Amino acid sequence: MTAIKKFIYSDYLKNASLTVGVNPVIFSVSENKLKVLLTTFDTRLKKLIPGGVILKNENADDAANRVLKETTGLENIFLKQFHLFSEPDRFSYSTAFEQLNDNSYKPPEDMDIPDRVFTVGYFALVNFNTVHPTRGDMNNTNEWIDISDVPELMFDHNLIIDEALDALRKELFIQPIGYNLLPEKFTMPDLQRIYEIILDRPLTRSNFQRKMLSWGIYERLEERKEGVSHKRPFLYLFNKEKYEKAVKQGANFWF
Amino acid sequence: MTAIKKFIYSDYLKNASLTVGVNPVIFSVSENKLKVLLTTFDTRLKKLIPGGVILKNENADDAANRVLKETTGLENIFLKQFHLFSEPDRFSYSTAFEQLNDNSYKPPEDMDIPDRVFTVGYFALVNFNTVHPTRGDMNNTNEWIDISDVPELMFDHNLIIDEALDALRKELFIQPIGYNLLPEKFTMPDLQRIYEIILDRPLTRSNFQRKMLSWGIYERLEERKEGVSHKRPFLYLFNKEKYEKAVKQGANFWF
Repeated sequence: MTAIKKFIYSDYLKNASLTVGVNPVIFSVSENKLKVLLTTFDTRLKKLIPGGVILKNENADDAANRVLKETTGLENIFLKQFHLFSEPDRFSYSTAFEQLNDNSYKPPEDMDIPDRVFTVGYFALVNFNTVHPTRGDMNNTNEWIDISDVPELMFDHNLIIDEALDALRKELFIQPIGYNLLPEKFTMPDLQRIYEIILDRPLTRSNFQRKMLSWGIYERLEERKEGVSHKRPFLYLFNKEKYEKAVKQGANFWF
Repeated sequence: MTAIKKFIYSDYLKNASLTVGVNPVIFSVSENKLKVLLTTFDTRLKKLIPGGVILKNENADDAANRVLKETTGLENIFLKQFHLFSEPDRFSYSTAFEQLNDNSYKPPEDMDIPDRVFTVGYFALVNFNTVHPTRGDMNNTNEWIDISDVPELMFDHNLIIDEALDALRKELFIQPIGYNLLPEKFTMPDLQRIYEIILDRPLTRSNFQRKMLSWGIYERLEERKEGVSHKRPFLYLFNKEKYEKAVKQGANFWF
């Protein structure tokens, strides 16, 4: 299958004039910077958020998890749907590809290009050290880009990243999700640093720790972090069991 | 156009095997109860959340606002998208209608029924006294139902209502939206009562007022509410200008 055929392939496409896709915005933190994973099909084309269409037997989450696995090699990543992008003209095959004037980007004769593509925006959080972005199976390259260096992207993908970041910032205070960006054992200063990088502003240490510990789902270990100059802060674990129990009991993490 | 043709009509349907719709869950409060607006096409059929497909020149918000206007007669209602419902088998024409064995529910010959319908869930908040649900233009009836009396609905509409309520509860603490359910002038006890009805639990008066007033967007009037026995609480207005200015300045209502 040619690259472009696979790029917009859907078992719904035949004779169909619309389709629905997913675009997971994959965030990570490295060297005190918030990063986002972007993909390139051809250096002459603008970059994209990884994505794909929802196939016949998939729901939106299934499709997003498939795209995440294809892009990062990882499963069971923290993933959250935040918005359906639905502007009538958000997808235009001709704007994106036709100017290349290159047969490898022309769709095969037996394939209809949809007039309209809806896409579900997701955000995902991964620990930077667990992902080794590689060449994708559509001969695309995936790479981490600093959020402040994101160039002009294809379609409405800049808007999708902006809204993904808003949704992530909002969710940080509602649900314990920041730990997904850290190794299994982490200190409260590590977790606070993650919040500060995502929010792009400093937080008060005492307020932050009180809020995080009030959730009762970060478990303090007897171990302390080694190699820190004068203080050796305690290490914590996210306790998934406690979290799930709290959710079941109707815990409101947001108040 | 027959009722059923209009019900699933889309200018995308011809030869298409999928379509995307909207379902706004319209909430209101009356007599200390949370209510939801439901619609009935035929007394032999299960009730539904009002809805419609996204037409060619509409985005999802446009479609949801159109459905809201058709259902309530109102424009500029508070409306928020919360989730795309995407299970492959969530829509089944035959399950919903064919058992009626009634020609008025058979689709016209020139119309293809989509194999799959995605729908965008919205929640909307309206002041009960401004809405007079009437017979819809598809010969359907709209009526307010107590949230605790919602019967088994068509498709996955019970799930959509459950998730709309979760999304509404979450949003209450993140954005000042509760006032949409009240008359223009209201007291803090009125607003607290709205929160308590939606959350289905009591809130502490002092905490509640501190939180609401910390947002700086409820303006206290010199007037007090008349006719309340011993205390006469101050009346407040939601100040849209202050709100928009705060949002522009990057206010985080959620922290």
